[in-house]
Amino acid sequence: MAEWEKLVADKRARLEKTIPAEWKIKAVPEGDSFFDFPAKSGILSENELQITESSATELVAKLASGELKSVDVTLAFCKRAAIAHQLVNCNLEFFPEQALAQAKELDAYFEQHKKPVGPLHGLPISLKDQFRIKGLETSMGYVSWLNKYDTEDSIMVTLLRKAGAVFYVKTSVPQTLMVCETVNNIIGRTVNPRNKNWSCGGSSGGEGAMVGIRGGIIGVGTDIGGSIRVPSAFNFLYGIRPSHGRMPYAKMANSMEGQETVHSVTGPIAHSAADIRLFLTSVLSEEPWKYDSKVIPLEWRHHEEDVIKNKINSGGLTLGFYNCDGVVLPHPPVLRGVDTVVSVLKENGHDVVEWSPYRHEYAVNLINGIYASDGGADVGRDIEASGEPAIPNIKDLLNPDIQAISMIQLWDTQLQKWQYQTEYLEKWRELEEKLGKELDAIIAPITPTAAIRHNQFRYYGYASAINLLDFTSVVVPVTFADKNIDVKNESYAPLNETDKLVQAEYDPDAYHGAPVAIQVIGRRLSEERTLAIAEEIGCLLGNTVTP
Amino acid sequence: MAEWEKLVADKRARLEKTIPAEWKIKAVPEGDSFFDFPAKSGILSENELQITESSATELVAKLASGELKSVDVTLAFCKRAAIAHQLVNCNLEFFPEQALAQAKELDAYFEQHKKPVGPLHGLPISLKDQFRIKGLETSMGYVSWLNKYDTEDSIMVTLLRKAGAVFYVKTSVPQTLMVCETVNNIIGRTVNPRNKNWSCGGSSGGEGAMVGIRGGIIGVGTDIGGSIRVPSAFNFLYGIRPSHGRMPYAKMANSMEGQETVHSVTGPIAHSAADIRLFLTSVLSEEPWKYDSKVIPLEWRHHEEDVIKNKINSGGLTLGFYNCDGVVLPHPPVLRGVDTVVSVLKENGHDVVEWSPYRHEYAVNLINGIYASDGGADVGRDIEASGEPAIPNIKDLLNPDIQAISMIQLWDTQLQKWQYQTEYLEKWRELEEKLGKELDAIIAPITPTAAIRHNQFRYYGYASAINLLDFTSVVVPVTFADKNIDVKNESYAPLNETDKLVQAEYDPDAYHGAPVAIQVIGRRLSEERTLAIAEEIGCLLGNTVTP
Repeated sequence: MAEWEKLVADKRARLEKTIPAEWKIKAVPEGDSFFDFPAKSGILSENELQITESSATELVAKLASGELKSVDVTLAFCKRAAIAHQLVNCNLEFFPEQALAQAKELDAYFEQHKKPVGPLHGLPISLKDQFRIKGLETSMGYVSWLNKYDTEDSIMVTLLRKAGAVFYVKTSVPQTLMVCETVNNIIGRTVNPRNKNWSCGGSSGGEGAMVGIRGGIIGVGTDIGGSIRVPSAFNFLYGIRPSHGRMPYAKMANSMEGQETVHSVTGPIAHSAADIRLFLTSVLSEEPWKYDSKVIPLEWRHHEEDVIKNKINSGGLTLGFYNCDGVVLPHPPVLRGVDTVVSVLKENGHDVVEWSPYRHEYAVNLINGIYASDGGADVGRDIEASGEPAIPNIKDLLNPDIQAISMIQLWDTQLQKWQYQTEYLEKWRELEEKLGKELDAIIAPITPTAAIRHNQFRYYGYASAINLLDFTSVVVPVTFADKNIDVKNESYAPLNETDKLVQAEYDPDAYHGAPVAIQVIGRRLSEERTLAIAEEIGCLLGNTVTP
Repeated sequence: MAEWEKLVADKRARLEKTIPAEWKIKAVPEGDSFFDFPAKSGILSENELQITESSATELVAKLASGELKSVDVTLAFCKRAAIAHQLVNCNLEFFPEQALAQAKELDAYFEQHKKPVGPLHGLPISLKDQFRIKGLETSMGYVSWLNKYDTEDSIMVTLLRKAGAVFYVKTSVPQTLMVCETVNNIIGRTVNPRNKNWSCGGSSGGEGAMVGIRGGIIGVGTDIGGSIRVPSAFNFLYGIRPSHGRMPYAKMANSMEGQETVHSVTGPIAHSAADIRLFLTSVLSEEPWKYDSKVIPLEWRHHEEDVIKNKINSGGLTLGFYNCDGVVLPHPPVLRGVDTVVSVLKENGHDVVEWSPYRHEYAVNLINGIYASDGGADVGRDIEASGEPAIPNIKDLLNPDIQAISMIQLWDTQLQKWQYQTEYLEKWRELEEKLGKELDAIIAPITPTAAIRHNQFRYYGYASAINLLDFTSVVVPVTFADKNIDVKNESYAPLNETDKLVQAEYDPDAYHGAPVAIQVIGRRLSEERTLAIAEEIGCLLGNTVTP
């Protein structure tokens, strides 16, 4: 057994012990889907099932009124997270005892002061294993990072804690985080609760799976190329990639630290737009800009939401849409997803016009160059430090043919990025001038496929072009692939080699039932408006669970 | 005559022709100060003197009501700018005919529509020669950039134009812009209108001199290490360095393009806080974030100003101050300037406490490394392209011993910067916790000297540390050096070699009468609050000219 394998064996043994015997399931159920198993497991009481199937907005209201105790809510989610892990293999850190102790303190506070400590009082929040919690490990999927214990909290953790959140689990990620699936050499692969043959997405894939199966109510991820939005899409969830500077990132673990040409951002994954809003408003109420210099002092702007509400109530929204970025055509279920959204919007009186994606291939190439700007040296070092092998999905990033660029080349790239962003804004203004009114957002695919089969992810461009633009993007779950409707277009002539590979992957039977989502794209730092539009779309689709 | 000298001779000849015979002064007056000369020149009518000695706020009100015509206001400023140039040598581009044609169009618009085109309708605005105006040259002080004509406007110019501003002059800058004095090989040195032996500051020094002598009413500069604030200070003016992302910068000329580790920002220089506010609110009303991706969608927040007004009216402000950053002790006039501000604030019931500057030497070294991160290669190329010599003040930047850093070193620097900024915020919070209330701003020197004698600038750290923090900073004029009060402390033991050089420069006679300023430092993107505090300090000092 190699040294790295010993580290892994030790970690797995420790992880195994985090689940008490009474939360152990007898056997992983037969069949491809685990989605309905928690309710049938016998481990959760009726009350616990009801708690874990509530919305976060409902739970915080009941916790703030004293109707629910944090220990009960926390226990319910700990139990369900334990079940989730046994089904889909999503935990990298699990600490129910600490969580229950924290919940107890919050209950004691409530008992004494008759008020909550903050807007998330007593609510369990799950975290991607990139957030630091003092005293715990943060592996980011690297074996070499095991057995190193954090000495302080990430600022997001500090602020969530102040807002009253309870921490109980840190979920799995792909080695390096630079992949939109979730596989590492520490615990292996995390699968999609709806079908174990599908990916849960990545890199915040543990969060996607955990929240998807309701072992978590709000999960916090990060996104530099789709890592919040892809797991949201693949698990029929809402997720937001806020623009850079809206949410805190200080004191996070990361690879390529100091790389600021394109920023990774933090953001929530949840079952509804309302729960996404709860998270964002709660964090902003703690004034993150006083803790992290990169956060913009911008409170939640209710008047910006009102702009959208007013438009909805009078005259309607004006939205652009595209179903192909000119590089890769999405699979039939995703094309139908976009069509469905466009149709339902039009039926409800909104103005939906075609958006011509401006040079997305250029954007995707530019951001791919940024991801690889050090030639993969930093992630390579962290992989090699333990002797573990690289996961197959990141071999592109570690290709020895990819050379690190010089600082001057980086400056050129940064200039190109800014120019491209500014040109994109010009296109946005041009359409507005043509229409004679504001373009409120753009509807687009977020991935070219419904929840993808393992190791088949070829093209992240629908997500990553938006990162390059630093636009706000909210994922809205739309529908499920249906083999009877989403037939393969056999006569389609692929646009290029990547498109050919993507098209070849479509199999109506294999994808039957896989979640389909779209993203709503707003200009930079338009979280209030873009989320409000996403919520309206969800309502029109009947997908929004309003409390 | 070398080739570059021919280019210069041609430019000077063209510049000479921009001033009509009737605006020519007979001879440069005797004595060190030109400050009072425009009024005595006989070139400006009584009405023109009155216009040029108004505030911008007054002028836009009269232009918007039809009481004044833009051609009259524009003519007055063109004439005064022509005089200014002949006295202090501050113009690099002067185009009164175009300006008057633009003014005429605006007057015609007003005549027809009975309303202004925007909040700056008909107001002349002077620009540092780094802003692009279609059809004109932008030299940035490089001989090699002469005879190249811009094909589009900078976004700031586009938006000012939309707001109704009239352009008539682009003012001088030091070769490279990386110096806080104003000297280049094209037109030589720009001097301080109050005393030709003093610097007008830099790099927006042409703006400082021009607005100082009222050849301009609002001047627009840029600041990456003090370049708006130093000319403001040296000319007894207000100036703001907004935080990055508040004002547009797209399509500006610049050196080291694509360098984003520390951002240069645009901002106004003016005679009052009210005029600074007029400029900022006017630009923001044009929604610059729809044109430049780096601009944050943040309207002028009147409620943030109200927070400060309410504190002033009840209980008072809470301010920190420091008079020494631990690296270089300011000269006696500047120490007295800080004392004066602290005293007047305390007398008026505000709480002013000592601020301990956190590792400013580290910050200054870090930002100096960023300025030189390409080893001076880019500016060196633009100097060498014409064969002109480097101005003496930038020899440090072009020192062949300074090596370009690698991209990985740049990432390290970026990480250090972020960590430092976050630690600084922590110190700010710690003091707030100790005081049990918000710390509203910090009062500090902006330069270690009053308006400095030529070629004596040794230390930019009071300005540049604030750039590294990306804090908002507003310069407030305070007083004038007085040889009878500001005696030299002969027993002072310098902190280091730089401090020794700075102290040696102090000569009470030579600095007698030189403007002294302080800066008011607010957290990132606190323009509304910080400007409101600066305005209050100006009022208490009796230096604010309110219309």
